[in-house]
Amino acid sequence: MNSFSSLPLTPDYDSWPIEADIVSVDHDARGVTLGWSDGRKSRYHGIWLRENAADESTVNPATRERILDLSRLPGWPEIAAAEIDDAGALCVAFAAEDRHLRFHPGWLRAHDYDNAGDPEAPLVPVRLWHGGPGADPDSLEASGLLDTEPAGDAEEAILAPALESVLGKGLVRLHGLPTEPGSLEAIARRIGPVRPTNFGLLFDVKAKPDPDSNAYTSIALPPHTDLPTREYHPGLQMLHCLENSVAGGEAVMLDGFAVAEALRQRAPAAFATLTRVHWCYANTARITDYVWYSPMIRLDARGELLEVRIADFLRGPLQAPFEEVEPAYEALMTLQAMLREPHFAIRFTYAPGDLVIFDNRRLLHARDAFEGSSGHRWLQGCYMERDEIRSRYRMIQRARRQRSHCHR
Amino acid sequence: MNSFSSLPLTPDYDSWPIEADIVSVDHDARGVTLGWSDGRKSRYHGIWLRENAADESTVNPATRERILDLSRLPGWPEIAAAEIDDAGALCVAFAAEDRHLRFHPGWLRAHDYDNAGDPEAPLVPVRLWHGGPGADPDSLEASGLLDTEPAGDAEEAILAPALESVLGKGLVRLHGLPTEPGSLEAIARRIGPVRPTNFGLLFDVKAKPDPDSNAYTSIALPPHTDLPTREYHPGLQMLHCLENSVAGGEAVMLDGFAVAEALRQRAPAAFATLTRVHWCYANTARITDYVWYSPMIRLDARGELLEVRIADFLRGPLQAPFEEVEPAYEALMTLQAMLREPHFAIRFTYAPGDLVIFDNRRLLHARDAFEGSSGHRWLQGCYMERDEIRSRYRMIQRARRQRSHCHR
Repeated sequence: MNSFSSLPLTPDYDSWPIEADIVSVDHDARGVTLGWSDGRKSRYHGIWLRENAADESTVNPATRERILDLSRLPGWPEIAAAEIDDAGALCVAFAAEDRHLRFHPGWLRAHDYDNAGDPEAPLVPVRLWHGGPGADPDSLEASGLLDTEPAGDAEEAILAPALESVLGKGLVRLHGLPTEPGSLEAIARRIGPVRPTNFGLLFDVKAKPDPDSNAYTSIALPPHTDLPTREYHPGLQMLHCLENSVAGGEAVMLDGFAVAEALRQRAPAAFATLTRVHWCYANTARITDYVWYSPMIRLDARGELLEVRIADFLRGPLQAPFEEVEPAYEALMTLQAMLREPHFAIRFTYAPGDLVIFDNRRLLHARDAFEGSSGHRWLQGCYMERDEIRSRYRMIQRARRQRSHCHR
Repeated sequence: MNSFSSLPLTPDYDSWPIEADIVSVDHDARGVTLGWSDGRKSRYHGIWLRENAADESTVNPATRERILDLSRLPGWPEIAAAEIDDAGALCVAFAAEDRHLRFHPGWLRAHDYDNAGDPEAPLVPVRLWHGGPGADPDSLEASGLLDTEPAGDAEEAILAPALESVLGKGLVRLHGLPTEPGSLEAIARRIGPVRPTNFGLLFDVKAKPDPDSNAYTSIALPPHTDLPTREYHPGLQMLHCLENSVAGGEAVMLDGFAVAEALRQRAPAAFATLTRVHWCYANTARITDYVWYSPMIRLDARGELLEVRIADFLRGPLQAPFEEVEPAYEALMTLQAMLREPHFAIRFTYAPGDLVIFDNRRLLHARDAFEGSSGHRWLQGCYMERDEIRSRYRMIQRARRQRSHCHR
């Protein structure tokens, strides 16, 4: 099927291995029905085919971005003819345009919306987890990551399992990375661009004089997500340990989705309250003033968990209808008590060179108080969007498809 | 009332002018009812007061962030006594704690949830707008912005009306800014941190060899929002003109919310379809692969417009249930035709030193084709989150409150 590789038969740069051949094509004015060599039947609308053609009237060949303006077509694109050509591609002629459009069978099969499952299914299945004594995050050796060629096989060997853990469990711990201050930026860029905030591109988690956040003291931090005061709080957080010689300061991680599902089972009324009441998240600091209102637990249209937004020290004054206030606090206190149940938590001590990457809209992180005078504890952190990790993981999947494609 | 200024009576750094004095206080175990000098009555729950106290058992004085853990209180905080002290503050004693907590009357009045309007009301009222011949964006002289003291009065005089236009109309045009490449970063930082993407911290909008986006060619761009391929596409975009001597390339801006409301009136079924069908937004490029699924028009729980996500050249193959596909395309083509109605659009030509700031989840921007050989057209752009502009605007409001406070 390499006869396709030189032809612009797909509107993208991806690779579409051919799982089955087109063996039959029927059409009417509104669409085509393909029969595949494995017996599957797939229907495609004419207008869908027209918009997704890959020719130069549809896609800018330099960018592979669409230039077709549907509303400027001479009416609804009706199909005049459809056939399979010698290369096995679908060839469609539209009545009002003097143009034959060709479609790659692998691409058509991969976008078979007539037989599709959930197109929005996560790249990696989401697995909720509990912790408890002895539980550890997925931990991977990552020394040498910065010596690998960007986007090369050696980098992929380190990143692929790490990204799978973050996508599936919301958390991974990498070992053996450099301990030079600032090296987190180069490490993060192996995945994607960092999202800076008012705390900087990288932020230093250590006890500081004149702190502007409880994170920058030696006190304990309760389980929380970072920056809930933002309309869209960051999807990913990275914490990179440069030094850790203090007594205490153990790291604690919980799967906020697992806690929320347990709350849904044990106390459905409290769960419902926390999905309904809008709390105020506020960081009314000296030189910035971030405020956002949101439920503590957000669900999608299907009732599935979308995000948790929890941080007692960043909640402003609740501004809810009077009758909602006591039920809201009762539900909050039920959740707070669950967040302290040890079986939800993974506890570990950062070693210099460790990097933890976690989903900041799913996981909660906490820390025990530490004894500042007993040594030094210095983490550097940064934020990133989940889009970046998904894009990077899709590129790994694309490389794998291309390899399997070549090996056919 | 300056006797308060030295006391930690509020949990934040904000300033709370006293509009009315507390003249009466009644209480029971669960809450207090305050009477104000203007006759208003306000009820506050005991647990709400307890959590929002400003003393050192509740708030870390160094960060003004909460340290109280409600679930570790000795039971529900019941009120033993409540009175007005000599300074006019509310003083509350809780039965299970040997502690008197004091509350600032200005802060209590400002957080009177018993009589509150919508706490999530926008900082500046949202005003939908139409364009048409002769219509211009709010345009402000901004020369000297970079010479002003950060967060000073001169900067505020330039930024305050600009931020009001962006918050209310989604758009402002500033004149007279520097034309040095890269100066956009310093200008943007007067508002807040820039959000980098795979296109960089700043991106150059000019015709480029080997372009990786239609934006980087000289072809026309239809009305669109940027980066709809992201889970959360950027809330703000800035476009800064460094050079413009080409024929054509006129800028076009539309209020996507005004177009959507017009669609809701004219074609309610098409509007409903575009709020329901999840389109695929994809940028399947050489080295990145961003994909997200979303309705083209998103509404909040009250049916109000939340965001529009429109970019024909960044839509991937629609993966909707078979029966949804033709209605989805009919609705899309109705919207596309409306987007070309001239009365929605503001058209203008960028002058060097112009900076346009607009809401990328509300406004659509477009550009005419330009004649690359006729001269140079170079815009630099960047993204930012709406949180930053709201934080900056709240700081301006806080400064104004503090001034009015001092002048009492």
